[in-house]
Amino acid sequence: MNYKPINFRQKFGLFAEQWQPKVVAEMNDYQFKVVKLQGDFIWHDHKDTDETFIVIEGRLRIDFRDGAVHLSSGEMFVVPKGVEHKPCAEREVKLLLIEPRGVPNTGAAGGDRTAPSDAWI
Amino acid sequence: MNYKPINFRQKFGLFAEQWQPKVVAEMNDYQFKVVKLQGDFIWHDHKDTDETFIVIEGRLRIDFRDGAVHLSSGEMFVVPKGVEHKPCAEREVKLLLIEPRGVPNTGAAGGDRTAPSDAWI
Repeated sequence: MNYKPINFRQKFGLFAEQWQPKVVAEMNDYQFKVVKLQGDFIWHDHKDTDETFIVIEGRLRIDFRDGAVHLSSGEMFVVPKGVEHKPCAEREVKLLLIEPRGVPNTGAAGGDRTAPSDAWI
Repeated sequence: MNYKPINFRQKFGLFAEQWQPKVVAEMNDYQFKVVKLQGDFIWHDHKDTDETFIVIEGRLRIDFRDGAVHLSSGEMFVVPKGVEHKPCAEREVKLLLIEPRGVPNTGAAGGDRTAPSDAWI
């Protein structure tokens, strides 16, 4: 067994591209993914699962059809399944995402912003 | 729907007791729990589930029968199911735990260190 900790800062240092989640760990059939976001994403939802956002560095806004949540470093939010949302960040934000293995970033919306859902780093 | 972020620092400010995990959020049938630890816990394992430790503040050592992992703020580790482990902290450490709803802190070991598994804060 490998007793090495997973260090978020070290993982974020390994890549520059935005909007491309990278798996860093698994817990049962769930995955922990680091991702850098900047700008606006697309409206989408995940029909079958909640999705957890934890801000490691920077600020994130998640828009909903009837409001928004603002997250800073050391804050988290769970987007319930089936709820349309759109992440936005004025400046680059570094996030930890937690969701079941195989969930695509664009959910049910699909399209050209869809990233590989099982890229490890 | 409630669009309030969950702020770890604010949650840790709401209680002082150690070794008593408090649920702050749920994702599907998983729970996010904040907990303060200091000293040695007991050897135990969780037969049916992995368990995730994320250090928010301080330092944590998790002993295994054949080694240990040292975690600092901004680091995580997933203890695989069925693997005996013993968390230890020389000074108080503030953690985020992630595991399925209803998992007891002492796993299969039980005993007087067992805390309520569904206390929210």
